[in-house]
Amino acid sequence: MSKFLNEKISKLSAYVPGEQPKDKKYIKLNTNESPFPPSKMAMKLAKKELEKVMLYPDPDCSELIKTIADYYGVKKEQVIVSNGSDEVLNFAFIAYCDDKTPAIFPDITYGFYKVFAGVNGVPYKEIPLKDDFSIDTNDYLNEKGVIFIANPNAPTGIKLPLEKIEEILSSNRERVVVIDEAYVDFGGESSISLIEKYDNLLVTQTFSKSRSMAGARLGFGIASEKIIQDLNTVKYSTNPYNVNRVTACLGIGAIKDDKYFKKNVDKIIENRVFTMVELKKMGFEFTPSNANFIFAKTDKMGGEELYLKLKEKGILIRHLKGERTSNYIRITIGSMDQMKKFIETVKEILGEKV
Amino acid sequence: MSKFLNEKISKLSAYVPGEQPKDKKYIKLNTNESPFPPSKMAMKLAKKELEKVMLYPDPDCSELIKTIADYYGVKKEQVIVSNGSDEVLNFAFIAYCDDKTPAIFPDITYGFYKVFAGVNGVPYKEIPLKDDFSIDTNDYLNEKGVIFIANPNAPTGIKLPLEKIEEILSSNRERVVVIDEAYVDFGGESSISLIEKYDNLLVTQTFSKSRSMAGARLGFGIASEKIIQDLNTVKYSTNPYNVNRVTACLGIGAIKDDKYFKKNVDKIIENRVFTMVELKKMGFEFTPSNANFIFAKTDKMGGEELYLKLKEKGILIRHLKGERTSNYIRITIGSMDQMKKFIETVKEILGEKV
Repeated sequence: MSKFLNEKISKLSAYVPGEQPKDKKYIKLNTNESPFPPSKMAMKLAKKELEKVMLYPDPDCSELIKTIADYYGVKKEQVIVSNGSDEVLNFAFIAYCDDKTPAIFPDITYGFYKVFAGVNGVPYKEIPLKDDFSIDTNDYLNEKGVIFIANPNAPTGIKLPLEKIEEILSSNRERVVVIDEAYVDFGGESSISLIEKYDNLLVTQTFSKSRSMAGARLGFGIASEKIIQDLNTVKYSTNPYNVNRVTACLGIGAIKDDKYFKKNVDKIIENRVFTMVELKKMGFEFTPSNANFIFAKTDKMGGEELYLKLKEKGILIRHLKGERTSNYIRITIGSMDQMKKFIETVKEILGEKV
Repeated sequence: MSKFLNEKISKLSAYVPGEQPKDKKYIKLNTNESPFPPSKMAMKLAKKELEKVMLYPDPDCSELIKTIADYYGVKKEQVIVSNGSDEVLNFAFIAYCDDKTPAIFPDITYGFYKVFAGVNGVPYKEIPLKDDFSIDTNDYLNEKGVIFIANPNAPTGIKLPLEKIEEILSSNRERVVVIDEAYVDFGGESSISLIEKYDNLLVTQTFSKSRSMAGARLGFGIASEKIIQDLNTVKYSTNPYNVNRVTACLGIGAIKDDKYFKKNVDKIIENRVFTMVELKKMGFEFTPSNANFIFAKTDKMGGEELYLKLKEKGILIRHLKGERTSNYIRITIGSMDQMKKFIETVKEILGEKV
């Protein structure tokens, strides 16, 4: 830290992303990426676009936004795109939170919400999940602040039904409610259908998981036109060209190649079932996941130990410290080959017969 | 604007980027892009990288950072990369400015500095350029705040010599001085050589202009290790994966293909000389540009009128409103063909013999 750093930033603890070790080749089941390459249609568009990379992108991202809007059945004025969905989440903190308007989210959820509050110098409040790791929406009905709910939640994968989201939305029309749907495609219910009814709703999604584009950085927000205007004010005040040309083309291709997208999502759900069944046979317990990961524990070994032993054997999963999570491991659902290898290795580690 | 927007953001005027009209094909001399395609080496690396786009990028961007560090003869701990240089500039506002530490910059310079101050809710002070549009560095010696100097400056193209930069750096070692070198490759002197001597210096550069990558979004900062640590705290608190995989590869290729880079820079300088000579023949005056643009005026026609007439004839240049700039036009230096067409069209408009 330099002596020049201001007070706000010198107090920050930055987000720690899942490890990306370079010492050897791992089976990566730790950062919820897709095991499948991006759509061929997307890659073809992107390759062609490379030739135009000396020119600035369209700051309005008109074609990409139109593609997303058409796909989700909303107006293009109801969509904003961003450099990963982290960026649009940060825009929401910048636009809606302040000294008197805290951010409100569960105690166990996406770890970045807390960090966004810190970097923007705004207060936040964490509401404990229930003992079974589910969200009690009643806890959110009387909160004055901007609510952030990941649906399905991470690292639990537990989803909330739309009627529960609607209870929060209708309980206080004077505050913004952000529903972070990074994992919705794997079995959640999207709140996009509610944006016409609730002008206080912002839904965010990402191309990083179900659309195989974590390395390209693309996210988006869907909301009322006025909320999108607000977020565009922030975008045009921080980084008007936030989405680059190649990523925009990959995004257009990824949406248009819907068959490939659906096939991949189906495979992940199938592999999730396989993995849960196999873990269950070994006595694991887990939360009911609707995401591309499983949050699981076993009485036979602590979460950290299992994580370390798997790493030793070339498989990366995620272990989250913290009183309620440290017994658990979070396993990203990869290809069937990867999941078979994972199950086999866990059996070895726990001393089961292979 | 929604009713939810907080006070700080509701007062903002966002930056207005140069227009990107879609009504017809223009000769684009308005946003300081390169007329040359990206390096073939860069494109080859990028095409290959597309196949890995389902995986998150390396958040540390190790290979790209090592490539930049080696090229500029600094340590990798002295480099940060960003989603365009706008992002690293914003990181500096976030890290170093606060209520008591204003941003300080010339009254005529990159229009975004003012916007960054706004979005971060910090005060700023504009210091008038001299009558000839040059910076009097004496004006900056006693200022308490974070100084932002574009060198060469925009839209004037005027450069400051290193000894003048050094006067500012040494006059107050307790404040950060940011030297924005977006246009340095076209004839400026880089301050990178001063970072060992001054731990209060941050130099920012971009791949958007001289390296033909405006559409890929890549910028970087070079400074003392401690300043880079500060900026990384901000990066890891807003967007750890800010630079995508494809752009990182384009950046590596653009640096490694140094011959192509130098050839393109030489061509721009040659075309700048041609354009200035031809404009001079028509009676234009201009500031001494060391950038890939010219800031010029003529007594025969006002800046806005000339801009509009050129647009009508299919050539886009930039006109900046404001008391001291409205007589001027800013012309990006493109290919020789583009510049010949531009000169020809100006002659037509001003009623000269073609």
